[in-house]
Amino acid sequence: MENVRVGVIGVGNMGSEHARYLVENEVEGARLAAICDERPEQLSAVTQRLKLRDDVRRFNDVRAMMASGEIDAVIICTPHYSHPDLAILAFQHNLHVLVEKPAGVYTKQVRQMNEAAKMTDRVYGIMYNQRTNPLYQKLRELVQAGELGEFRRLNWIITDWYRSQSYYNSGGWRATWAGEGGGVLINQVPHQLDLWQWTIGLMPSRIRAFCSFGKHRQIEVENEVTAYAEYANGATAVFITSTCEAPGTNRLEVTGDRGKIVIEEDTIKYWRLRESESAFNATYTGGFGQPECWKCELPVEPGTGDQHVGITRDWIQAIRTGSPLLAPGEEGIRGLTLSNAMLLSTWTDDWVSLPLDEDLFYEHLQAQIRASKELGA
Amino acid sequence: MENVRVGVIGVGNMGSEHARYLVENEVEGARLAAICDERPEQLSAVTQRLKLRDDVRRFNDVRAMMASGEIDAVIICTPHYSHPDLAILAFQHNLHVLVEKPAGVYTKQVRQMNEAAKMTDRVYGIMYNQRTNPLYQKLRELVQAGELGEFRRLNWIITDWYRSQSYYNSGGWRATWAGEGGGVLINQVPHQLDLWQWTIGLMPSRIRAFCSFGKHRQIEVENEVTAYAEYANGATAVFITSTCEAPGTNRLEVTGDRGKIVIEEDTIKYWRLRESESAFNATYTGGFGQPECWKCELPVEPGTGDQHVGITRDWIQAIRTGSPLLAPGEEGIRGLTLSNAMLLSTWTDDWVSLPLDEDLFYEHLQAQIRASKELGA
Repeated sequence: MENVRVGVIGVGNMGSEHARYLVENEVEGARLAAICDERPEQLSAVTQRLKLRDDVRRFNDVRAMMASGEIDAVIICTPHYSHPDLAILAFQHNLHVLVEKPAGVYTKQVRQMNEAAKMTDRVYGIMYNQRTNPLYQKLRELVQAGELGEFRRLNWIITDWYRSQSYYNSGGWRATWAGEGGGVLINQVPHQLDLWQWTIGLMPSRIRAFCSFGKHRQIEVENEVTAYAEYANGATAVFITSTCEAPGTNRLEVTGDRGKIVIEEDTIKYWRLRESESAFNATYTGGFGQPECWKCELPVEPGTGDQHVGITRDWIQAIRTGSPLLAPGEEGIRGLTLSNAMLLSTWTDDWVSLPLDEDLFYEHLQAQIRASKELGA
Repeated sequence: MENVRVGVIGVGNMGSEHARYLVENEVEGARLAAICDERPEQLSAVTQRLKLRDDVRRFNDVRAMMASGEIDAVIICTPHYSHPDLAILAFQHNLHVLVEKPAGVYTKQVRQMNEAAKMTDRVYGIMYNQRTNPLYQKLRELVQAGELGEFRRLNWIITDWYRSQSYYNSGGWRATWAGEGGGVLINQVPHQLDLWQWTIGLMPSRIRAFCSFGKHRQIEVENEVTAYAEYANGATAVFITSTCEAPGTNRLEVTGDRGKIVIEEDTIKYWRLRESESAFNATYTGGFGQPECWKCELPVEPGTGDQHVGITRDWIQAIRTGSPLLAPGEEGIRGLTLSNAMLLSTWTDDWVSLPLDEDLFYEHLQAQIRASKELGA
């Protein structure tokens, strides 16, 4: 099979990095065939920096690139709002799609993207590079294998996404409802929102969340969130994120009927009960006392995995061989649902049940955008 | 000054332990003068086990003991509901009071106890033995000295209070609304509810909590709680406790403008920012980037402190010398307020603002007790 000819749409920070590793042949079976950006100065800058040869075509119009016949596949690295429309356009041009996170800003548009994908046989992936991290892969594998027993409780403190006011000031579109469509939930923490549902393999039944908007920062969107979630089986979860805390924490604790797993400081710790809590409780007669517990050391590959290039390799391999994707595009809607639900719960000061009322979220988001424009006017 | 003559009211598990260390002269300046219990078999058992001499008087009537002239002070170790009434009675008999935790079951009765205490010059303490733990003393001292800067966020996972069904079955009054007046919040976790407010020196302005009643256990009261709290300065807190989780976690994280402190596995870890987050943020211009952080090792006394006997020594010293108490009785209402607010938030499925609506809580508690009796009938 010929090398897959990849076009990168949007060559800002992330897009130019994808272009770089493709040009440097870090992805077997793929080559950078084109880049596209509305900003001519951006195209020139990337061309010079990566020393692109003339056979890498430059486009300032995405439709022209898609219709050129020069590419088989696109990586979409444009602002969040545009991801679904561009992916749908790409599917209409019979192109494979790898979309950067987040899948979009609101689930209604992402659902349309997923439906468009279903109508084609093209390979549709999402850049959830944290799924290549061996720690979270191990957790997922243990849960799937039943080692942890029935899921009971999760607590994720992921507050190491520090962003200064200077960062927020670096682009007028940043941290605005109209420009980004959200704050930490849409920009920084989509990876962990995805890993939350991906590792335990469950979505909650309802969410009650508490977002702070512009906390210690002059921005309009949420930059600190505490969310509480309940599951159909009675399990609960707490998810806490912030961009204004230093040094921040990244600690994930998951408990099940069979013990506890903690991922923190790039290690995984596993406390395994000799018999399950429920079995112990059903037969124990001694009053005080608890199940015997073993602290276990697990073999885990060192490092954080192949990250972005790993996801792109996996996607190219799927295109070439039909292998299953590590991060299928259809799954992008799950983390976004959690994110949308957290905002909606804050705005309505109430529970949000899943499946999410997508129209209600969309209405609230539009109200935020209108208020934002009024502020700016 | 003569030794303080102490009477212990209620000689079950805790009461007999207080009697033991008093008899064994572990508290300088105090002696066990009397014990009181409605259950004659309990009085005999403790008399035999501790080999009590005849000069330790035995009473089955608390008023008789208080009026006997044989004691100067009482330690109250009876079921939770009775603590305030007994303390008020003791003050009326001009006795010093040390009350076991919790101060009571509902704040309305505890407020009456506090008011009775105010009318006397007697020394009034509460058995918050965890205040003797050097780890929490260190945290409090750092916060008070301003080392941590303005309080930002707290997360306490205190799920290592495992209790089996067998434990709950060991007494008919256990884990009932009528008998104990609550579950984990009133029986197991009052220490941590107190340390939460004592270490940071603040009470929240409002609470939204989610209690599970009889989770994985056949009991009617709460045995798993997740609570979210907000403070006047915008700070937030999450407090999670459970009695049905093994092996459980005890991890307290507190962040401030100046860094982060974590108490876990009997150690304290301290990440200190070279300059405060707010000062860094106000002047930094580099986009990405964050305050310089130092991981500091703190000198902390090993062990968990003198615990129960430490609190009793402190109380006796206060009686003899007028020294300030480590755990003044008046402060018992604070942790109980947090506990009551968590239940009320769950029952009303809504926010609870502080100061707490004490009458509303009392009404809801009475409704639970009535429903409980109906179930039992």
